[in-house]
Order: sequence, then C-alpha cells, then structure tokens
Amino acid sequence: MSRYRVEVRVMPRATLLDPQGQAVQRALHALGFGDVGDVRVGKHLVLDVQADSRDEALAHARAMCDRLLANPVTEDYDLAVEAA
Amino acid sequence: MSRYRVEVRVMPRATLLDPQGQAVQRALHALGFGDVGDVRVGKHLVLDVQADSRDEALAHARAMCDRLLANPVTEDYDLAVEAA
Repeated sequence: MSRYRVEVRVMPRATLLDPQGQAVQRALHALGFGDVGDVRVGKHLVLDVQADSRDEALAHARAMCDRLLANPVTEDYDLAVEAA
Repeated sequence: MSRYRVEVRVMPRATLLDPQGQAVQRALHALGFGDVGDVRVGKHLVLDVQADSRDEALAHARAMCDRLLANPVTEDYDLAVEAA
C-alpha cells in the first residue's frame, strides 16, 4: 500500500446559475474591482488516500465523489492523483 | 483589454485544524472508505477578468484575494491565469 495525494475540484455545472459566484462578483464590484465578469465558486478538496496503485487511488476517489463529495445533478468534478 | 480566466485555490493553512475536512473524513469512513487519511477542504474560484496583460490580471486577482477571497489569518491561496 502506498499513500497518494488526491486533489478534487468540484464546480457548479456551467449551465447552472451560481448564486454564490454572483454574490462574490457583486462584492468585488463594490470593492472597486469593476473588471471582473463571471465568477464561479466551487470546492477544492485534498485527500490522503492509501491504495495499491495510482489507478486504484483514482478509482476510490471517483467513487467518493460519486457518493459524497459532488452532487451529480448540479456539480462536475475533476481529479488529480500524485504519489504522496 | 483582453479577457483572462483566473483560477484561485483557497485552502486552510496546513498548521490549522480543518473541522470541515474532519467531518468529510468521518463521513467517508462511515461510507466504507477506510483508506482515507487526512482531508482538507477549501474553495476553488474561477474569475473572468479584463486586463491589459496577464501580469495585470494576476496583480488584480492577488488584490482580490487579499481583500475579499481569502482570510489572511487562516487561509493560503494560489493563482493561475490564462488567456480566456
């Protein structure tokens, strides 16, 4: 078993409204950052995973995203795995 | 003026407890993912920024992080800028 560092980025789907992103955009405009257009806000998770191989770590991470970390209806995720 | 896509990753400082990460770790263990160790949860933002150059977009994004997007006491951030 080796340790892997899995980076997970979870973002609201491009076709959906992102109220949190809109709130951040308004706050940035109010602070004088008028050059900011669209803002999207998602999550970034870093997981420490024990697995026999990089592929196994990736498969486990994908299962975690499907079952808990991302909402399959409203969010997309992508994964990056590296040896820890 | 050109448009740039700025990716911002904001994570809790490594030396601080991350209660949200601990909650995710417990939930993953309860779902049977016992191979997961430390979990850290942060934010990922994607901003659409108008600027005269890549360096100017980066400087503006850094100012936004310092003033609004990241808590300088508890969080670290890193930035990536690409032409949109």
